[in-house]
Amino acid sequence: MRRLNIVLVEPEIPANTGNIARTCAVTGTTLHLVRPLGFSTEDKYLKRAGLDYWDMVNIFYYESFQEVVESHSEHSFYLATTKAAKSYTEMLYEPGSFLVFGKETAGLSQEILCSFPENQIRIPMLKGARSLNLGNSAAIILYEALRQQGFQGLA
Amino acid sequence: MRRLNIVLVEPEIPANTGNIARTCAVTGTTLHLVRPLGFSTEDKYLKRAGLDYWDMVNIFYYESFQEVVESHSEHSFYLATTKAAKSYTEMLYEPGSFLVFGKETAGLSQEILCSFPENQIRIPMLKGARSLNLGNSAAIILYEALRQQGFQGLA
Repeated sequence: MRRLNIVLVEPEIPANTGNIARTCAVTGTTLHLVRPLGFSTEDKYLKRAGLDYWDMVNIFYYESFQEVVESHSEHSFYLATTKAAKSYTEMLYEPGSFLVFGKETAGLSQEILCSFPENQIRIPMLKGARSLNLGNSAAIILYEALRQQGFQGLA
Repeated sequence: MRRLNIVLVEPEIPANTGNIARTCAVTGTTLHLVRPLGFSTEDKYLKRAGLDYWDMVNIFYYESFQEVVESHSEHSFYLATTKAAKSYTEMLYEPGSFLVFGKETAGLSQEILCSFPENQIRIPMLKGARSLNLGNSAAIILYEALRQQGFQGLA
């Protein structure tokens, strides 16, 4: 089994990152965090949301999204954005894929979006509604990728 | 389109219920809350997690799970529990289905689980791992049901 990967680019809210760390811990997913982070990794909300999961996750830190791409160029990258034409369910996720999420207030930058124009994915919502919580978006897309791969290694 | 429904039985943590209210708001899902709740509906964490979504959701309150079932006996109920034999992806969700989640610390009671023995569903995780956050569990199962129904009414 090749693990899936979640990339958070400049996340702002510690409870969301803690929450996503917990999702990674229970699924064997690797977490990649691109600085600057909007919080200290000693933050109490981060730890509370991550419960005792924080130390059970493989976490890697980067100074830029470019650094993530260069370090893992053999893998496929999928970018979550409310502006994508394709639903996340229309994409086929390969083992080892990288699922990329932007900061809570602004999403992914135009520069990052343009680096993988074919691999942008959207979570369908009511028209005119604001967005899902970042932790939920990550869980929904991760579990679709896991479903496609038959939940290999999970029980 | 017949809306899907989320039922939270005696939820304890206000931020989780607020978070799930937000998920309901952006998907047109109806939220059903069974008392006692572990918080006041004026709680500031509830409102913060629900942002300005709280007032955009149809929410109904009940004194018992039995009351939910009796009020909606023409619909199918699916019970989320880590003890279920079937994965949530093996189930076919009809329009108007009720997706039921227990309290954070203890899950659904044996009595509730036994009321729909064939409709218990599990989210696959690493063996020995603790559980997903309640808000994420609800989002994952809800979006699987929405996926199966072709995201009708969503964009």
